[in-house]
Amino acid sequence: MGQQPFLEKLRVEKPLVHNIANIVVSNFQANGLLALGASPMMAEGIEEVAEMAALADCTVLNIGTLDQGTVLSIIEAGKSANKKGIPVVLDPVGVGASVFRKKSVTTILKEVQVTAIRCNVGELATLGNIEWQSRGADAGEGQIDVQLTAKQVAKRLNCIVAVTGFEDTVTDGQTTIQIDGGHDLMPLITGSGCLLSAVTGAFLAVSDGHHLQATANALSFYKQVGERAAKTAIAPGTFAVEMINSLYSLTSENLRNNMKIVEKEDIQI
Amino acid sequence: MGQQPFLEKLRVEKPLVHNIANIVVSNFQANGLLALGASPMMAEGIEEVAEMAALADCTVLNIGTLDQGTVLSIIEAGKSANKKGIPVVLDPVGVGASVFRKKSVTTILKEVQVTAIRCNVGELATLGNIEWQSRGADAGEGQIDVQLTAKQVAKRLNCIVAVTGFEDTVTDGQTTIQIDGGHDLMPLITGSGCLLSAVTGAFLAVSDGHHLQATANALSFYKQVGERAAKTAIAPGTFAVEMINSLYSLTSENLRNNMKIVEKEDIQI
Amino acid sequence: MGQQPFLEKLRVEKPLVHNIANIVVSNFQANGLLALGASPMMAEGIEEVAEMAALADCTVLNIGTLDQGTVLSIIEAGKSANKKGIPVVLDPVGVGASVFRKKSVTTILKEVQVTAIRCNVGELATLGNIEWQSRGADAGEGQIDVQLTAKQVAKRLNCIVAVTGFEDTVTDGQTTIQIDGGHDLMPLITGSGCLLSAVTGAFLAVSDGHHLQATANALSFYKQVGERAAKTAIAPGTFAVEMINSLYSLTSENLRNNMKIVEKEDIQI
Repeated sequence: MGQQPFLEKLRVEKPLVHNIANIVVSNFQANGLLALGASPMMAEGIEEVAEMAALADCTVLNIGTLDQGTVLSIIEAGKSANKKGIPVVLDPVGVGASVFRKKSVTTILKEVQVTAIRCNVGELATLGNIEWQSRGADAGEGQIDVQLTAKQVAKRLNCIVAVTGFEDTVTDGQTTIQIDGGHDLMPLITGSGCLLSAVTGAFLAVSDGHHLQATANALSFYKQVGERAAKTAIAPGTFAVEMINSLYSLTSENLRNNMKIVEKEDIQI
Repeated sequence: MGQQPFLEKLRVEKPLVHNIANIVVSNFQANGLLALGASPMMAEGIEEVAEMAALADCTVLNIGTLDQGTVLSIIEAGKSANKKGIPVVLDPVGVGASVFRKKSVTTILKEVQVTAIRCNVGELATLGNIEWQSRGADAGEGQIDVQLTAKQVAKRLNCIVAVTGFEDTVTDGQTTIQIDGGHDLMPLITGSGCLLSAVTGAFLAVSDGHHLQATANALSFYKQVGERAAKTAIAPGTFAVEMINSLYSLTSENLRNNMKIVEKEDIQI
Repeated sequence: MGQQPFLEKLRVEKPLVHNIANIVVSNFQANGLLALGASPMMAEGIEEVAEMAALADCTVLNIGTLDQGTVLSIIEAGKSANKKGIPVVLDPVGVGASVFRKKSVTTILKEVQVTAIRCNVGELATLGNIEWQSRGADAGEGQIDVQLTAKQVAKRLNCIVAVTGFEDTVTDGQTTIQIDGGHDLMPLITGSGCLLSAVTGAFLAVSDGHHLQATANALSFYKQVGERAAKTAIAPGTFAVEMINSLYSLTSENLRNNMKIVEKEDIQI
């Protein structure tokens, strides 16, 4: 993967990232984007969301605390972003946890062309119609070939699929990249996945169409943010604070020197 | 009170705690539950809330930022939890502050059998129909016999009543337990009471029906969380962070060695 | 400007500050008010908001995450506050970012007599009908005579206008005051402006009608809160925590010794 200077570019251009977030993570997500160097805009009212998305350089759609109103706002924002041609990231939080979430994500994916889906392995299982024991917004348990399922979903939806956890997998349906690193405290921070979706959006906003590389860079960057946070934090309260600090202080040079990326051969499916 | 190993059990079983929280405290409540070792699920859309509650090991219902939609979701979630037989905790935030809150809580308590109510003294006064000067979500001012009122409410509603503040009182209507400890900075953290309700829910989720002991343990544990946080924090910004750290690091052994519990004789009322 | 003891008074009287905030900043705003010594009440349900505002010593209305329901609640709360005669602060977050926000603020200002508007320069431009390139909730870019526009808006709406940023300007339409200080990390904290609006509300709640002085004091105090936070924090995660700590620990004596206020001559417009 080419070492694209996405992070430098992001910090110069300060992309405006529109977010439909949720009541749990909005503050952490906005602070994370600001610390990173992006400009967050949190807006979900149906009365303005299309206009807000059209102002932005990227839109990040999160189904964390969902109701029918949010679904309509997500579709409006996504369509507006599609019309303007800016990247759209979908975070299908806990999609397997309820019939309503499953139906809503199906509808969203019919109405909106997403650029990337950022999910955990349980959410991937639901998107790939794999049997899975859901546990709310957590990953849950089951048997899945992550790479194969991610490629299938990416091909079917014509988008990047990024599956994150202890090891990250990102694919455009052809090339698959795996990324190691991160820290055990990351899943103990609520919204650490949601913020990663937003960080991915910020990288995509400056990607000039290099979606796979930008997403892989965002994932690698975020794992290093977690590693750096863990240097001074040993418990989750401090760790969340240090995540924000690291999003601010981690440089492109740090990033280049520490990427743990394994590029995979194409596997035909 | 028997030294039930609720905390160890909780950290092994990682109960899924469903929360209808509010826009102020959702992040703190979710992070607190994660740090404690539970698995939080925040969901309140009427379209899915019954299903979400039925997935969980406990549901925690909070009226912090209330409207009619939230009341309906609370009732749906509570009924679903009752049907499944999992514990239900109600946090009647600022119930005395508006006619709407009073009516809503009356309706909720008619429709849902709650396992425990976690409240402050002002909220208890409203539940017990005692004259009280409400101050928003704060405790406010008035004259009340806390133990007597708590017992009366517990008997009437057939549930545990936990009244927390500088001293905590918990009763099932028969046995009453008082718990000392905690720290003056705790009421300066928004949602410190809301998070305690959720922590109580997590303890109840592994209580095997020992509701009074589990609630008393949760309250005692939480006071020690505050005491431990105050060892490194002298102002509320740092204190909130250290509360999360302490929820993570406090062990059962710490808990056993420091419980400040006074068991009360039964008083017939 | 007279050295009014607003801060001492606030810490003794602990004014109840009613807030219609938003899902991004509610937690930070409530914790900031608590740390300052005020008593926050976050309530926006149309079913109770008039009653809640009438309980309070001040109401702070924020359009951060707006929809039609919030607009109605803001008007209800504002009218109730007007009827009771308590101060009303409006924070027109990102008012230039959408047609809906512009229309909503126009409607709110027709229905409610606000005591003070706390905004950034981009929001001022929209209120003053100046051409401006909006960037979501950020200040954005354009040419504006801040003092002149602030005075015009203050005269037209018969209220205090406080325009905050690297330098703060506050005016009642006659006397204009400028305040230096603060720190570069402040705009990297989401809701730092929203919290300042709430802090202004708390100062106004104890102002006995000295609205201009109370607002100028609040602004000067807040800049020092930022300066003090920057003494121990060099990145935004820690800085946000230290903002809350400083709101708690900064004394009136600190405030008196460090005010950077330049009182301006009246300029007839």
